Amino acid sequence: MNRSFDKCRSVLITGASRGLGLQIVKDLVRRKDSPARVIATARHPTAAKELQDLSKTHSGVHIISLDVISQASIDAAVQEVTMLVGEDGLNCLINNAAIGIPTDLESVTAEAMMKTFESNTVAPLMVTKAFLPLLRVAAAQGSGMGIDRAAVVNISSILGSIQLNWGAGAAFKSYGYRTSKATLNMVTRCLATDLGTDGILCMALHPGWVRTDMGGPLADLSVEESITSVLAVIAGLTEKDHGEYRDYAGKPLPW
Amino acid sequence: MNRSFDKCRSVLITGASRGLGLQIVKDLVRRKDSPARVIATARHPTAAKELQDLSKTHSGVHIISLDVISQASIDAAVQEVTMLVGEDGLNCLINNAAIGIPTDLESVTAEAMMKTFESNTVAPLMVTKAFLPLLRVAAAQGSGMGIDRAAVVNISSILGSIQLNWGAGAAFKSYGYRTSKATLNMVTRCLATDLGTDGILCMALHPGWVRTDMGGPLADLSVEESITSVLAVIAGLTEKDHGEYRDYAGKPLPW
Ligand SMILES: NC(=O)c1ccc[n+]([C@@H]2O[C@H](COP(=O)([O-])OP(=O)(O)OC[C@H]3O[C@@H](n4cnc5c(N)ncnc54)[C@H](OP(=O)(O)O)[C@@H]3O)[C@@H](O)[C@H]2O)c1
Ligand SMILES: NC(=O)c1ccc[n+]([C@@H]2O[C@H](COP(=O)([O-])OP(=O)(O)OC[C@H]3O[C@@H](n4cnc5c(N)ncnc54)[C@H](OP(=O)(O)O)[C@@H]3O)[C@@H](O)[C@H]2O)c1
Repeated sequence: MNRSFDKCRSVLITGASRGLGLQIVKDLVRRKDSPARVIATARHPTAAKELQDLSKTHSGVHIISLDVISQASIDAAVQEVTMLVGEDGLNCLINNAAIGIPTDLESVTAEAMMKTFESNTVAPLMVTKAFLPLLRVAAAQGSGMGIDRAAVVNISSILGSIQLNWGAGAAFKSYGYRTSKATLNMVTRCLATDLGTDGILCMALHPGWVRTDMGGPLADLSVEESITSVLAVIAGLTEKDHGEYRDYAGKPLPW
Repeated sequence: MNRSFDKCRSVLITGASRGLGLQIVKDLVRRKDSPARVIATARHPTAAKELQDLSKTHSGVHIISLDVISQASIDAAVQEVTMLVGEDGLNCLINNAAIGIPTDLESVTAEAMMKTFESNTVAPLMVTKAFLPLLRVAAAQGSGMGIDRAAVVNISSILGSIQLNWGAGAAFKSYGYRTSKATLNMVTRCLATDLGTDGILCMALHPGWVRTDMGGPLADLSVEESITSVLAVIAGLTEKDHGEYRDYAGKPLPW
């Protein structure tokens, strides 16, 4: 199995200002098999200090403004990326940006549900839809399935597993976050059905419980540990992963 | 197993103006074991002609105004129902109201996703949350689990099964509707975890593909066929159904 980014010319990451998104960029640019273009997007790029520094020392890093819940911002980003990648198209889109608002039974409101759904479910769908022409350009140049050709990776969470949300697995209470990731899994599955014939792989990936602003200081994994594994899974994606929901070790998760 | 509504004093149905919701009301009031109070709610009660006629001939039918996406409407309905049921509380809440907007990959918009999620996922959660005090009153008066005590039935759909959305099962394309029902399943599972200790049963139920305005004329089942089966499942609910996702025959569905 191919486990490298050798033939992957471009990767676009949403929410690359901090946390896992930033670590994906850092890890990708340091690799020997670094993709020619690492397109790091952030909603406030000028405030993303670490990302700015990285782009000064690594010419492959391209910072582009992208607020995933704004269609105008999405459309502008597509225009910029189109100029950047030209006839190569886009090989890999990683929908990573997300929010987490505390929403247990007591505190959950309709607004919090809607806001979380907008950022974590609707945004990845609308971003993917907007970048489809570029993914299709890349897909038309390859065969098989994977990042050598075209792939959409939705960063989901084990908390989105409806089946595992029971007994001990239900200890973490969050109506907003859990529903948003369960539906991101459904969106992934719908996209996989629609894009498979174009040769565009789509899958949902749980990065582990990671020490970021979202994961908190008590989480299991460092960002380095998580992203080393996450990128190994992404590098090795094949047909068998299309439409699937896996963790950072590549293990299938139940819906 | 108890298969009757004998000890169930009250059932509240959302979206009872037409389709499956109306048929639930019709079927319940005609039964020998009819619950004392069949609380038929609709967002435009005066326009619900059949429901109005039914209430004239059946004193057990109480029509109450409830637009499930309006918190003010929910709060007003809770007040009315509290007056109606008094110290008995509410035994069974059926979250049936829902919408379906065509949303394939081409036509799907952020707005359509949000609107469907609001009606089909957030509304059942907020309605359940608002009626919890009345469900708890009923639950405190019984033991075991089921409609003799307190139960929340979320009318889901097989189209919300992420696992079954593949191959032939993926023929019906609808990003909005499918995601809204997948998350309703997640909401059901979250509610089951939170309400189980109160003795309130929560489950998700697929009524079959039925000839209503939503199901269309080519569907498998008449409303009579569907609701006869649906009410048999509801009448027979026990601990083993808590947190589960079943079809109108009581068969478990994969998430
Ligand atoms: N950490 C964990 O334990 C864990 C576990 C499972 C899954 N995940 C998932 O992994 C992904 C990354 O999480 P993380 O831990 O790195 O979270 P994080 O530290 O909170 O970072 C979230 C990132 O998303 C960005 N973002 C949020 N809304 C955005 C928008 N509208 N437009 C553009 N960017 C936006 C943030 O940008 P700003 O800097 O501008 O706010 C930030 O870069 C998420 O999908 C998360 O759900 C995390
Ligand atoms: N029919 C099927 O084949 C099928 C299959 C699987 C699942 N289901 C589910 O079964 C349930 C009933 O479907 P149906 O076939 O009876 O649909 P339907 O014929 O379209 O009726 C929908 C009902 O929901 C009500 N409603 C919609 N939005 C509402 C709101 N904001 N507040 C209050 N009421 C609202 C409608 O009221 P108005 O009259 O005021 O519009 C109507 O009474 C739904 O949850 C649906 O998803 C249906």
